[in-house]
Amino acid sequence: MSKGAGILRGASRSVYFATKNKAKYLEAARITATYGVHLRYLPFSKQEIQAEDLREIASFAAMEAARSKVRTVVAEDAGFFVDALKGFPGPYSSYVFKTLGTSGILKLVENVRNRKASFLSAVSYCEPNRRPISFTGTVRGLVSKKPKGSGGFGFDPIFIPSKGDGRTFAEMQIDEKNAFSHRAKAFRRFARWFTSSR
Amino acid sequence: MSKGAGILRGASRSVYFATKNKAKYLEAARITATYGVHLRYLPFSKQEIQAEDLREIASFAAMEAARSKVRTVVAEDAGFFVDALKGFPGPYSSYVFKTLGTSGILKLVENVRNRKASFLSAVSYCEPNRRPISFTGTVRGLVSKKPKGSGGFGFDPIFIPSKGDGRTFAEMQIDEKNAFSHRAKAFRRFARWFTSSR
Repeated sequence: MSKGAGILRGASRSVYFATKNKAKYLEAARITATYGVHLRYLPFSKQEIQAEDLREIASFAAMEAARSKVRTVVAEDAGFFVDALKGFPGPYSSYVFKTLGTSGILKLVENVRNRKASFLSAVSYCEPNRRPISFTGTVRGLVSKKPKGSGGFGFDPIFIPSKGDGRTFAEMQIDEKNAFSHRAKAFRRFARWFTSSR
Repeated sequence: MSKGAGILRGASRSVYFATKNKAKYLEAARITATYGVHLRYLPFSKQEIQAEDLREIASFAAMEAARSKVRTVVAEDAGFFVDALKGFPGPYSSYVFKTLGTSGILKLVENVRNRKASFLSAVSYCEPNRRPISFTGTVRGLVSKKPKGSGGFGFDPIFIPSKGDGRTFAEMQIDEKNAFSHRAKAFRRFARWFTSSR
């Protein structure tokens, strides 16, 4: 795509990130900016549905935000999926973190050989009264034996990404984690599509 | 309420139970029938939202069903809440049952002294384009040491109601369980209100 088309698009169509989490917005905006996509902040408490596919949850939220705010938006949903627990806690990671915490997950995988797990992110783009389009990002890794590190949030202290050096996500600097995080991957895929597809 | 008024209401306003679970419908219809309320079956896959209050989940489902089917409906949502796990699995009981099962819950409360738990049910009544009204039912009990019985469903094999004789819900006959189940209580409250409030 030519630089001119990018500028035209930026001028003609703003994309808002509908989220109540400003830190998440700042993280995403930094990623999309490297593709020339200026993401705007739209404080929005999304109505999350119960679904096992994060794309459905993000799509529903994006449609709701696009409809109620009459804006072109993206919404995001993420989850932590443990292979030996059939994907639990998955789409309900926030609730499970609040109730069971990292210690609950460690108790559930005690004496379990298969420690494989993933973080997944789904970013959905939606224009008012249009169907949403979703982009996903995954990072594979292992559940650690005990929590380590104080950075990040949620299950970061018990997740060791396969492509790292053995440290948990919570032991990494934010930029280091974002270099290969699930959320960064999903937002990069969205930004690439947005700047080149039309 | 006079019998005449009941007949009038029954003739003028039908209430549909929006659910995809026919067994649940039959159970509820039997309860409301004892109050003279004829519940009709409306096969409906409700869109469940993520919320920690079952009333919100049931209300959202009832509003959706009332709006899309243009009918006066009730919808129901239920969950299993373990005190020592801060209410987990609560509103996500179906998903947690599918992924962790009863053995996952038993592992989480291994060596935990406080075995108190509850089953909760929320029934929401909604007329098209009106606000829903919710009714709840609770049954208190304990998490058993191991699963017992083959009746019921979900977490029934590990729940011993306090007002019972030490057997789990899964060891009881359906009528026995329904005599004091959370769902029966919620539907009784709805039926009492429906036949007397206006």
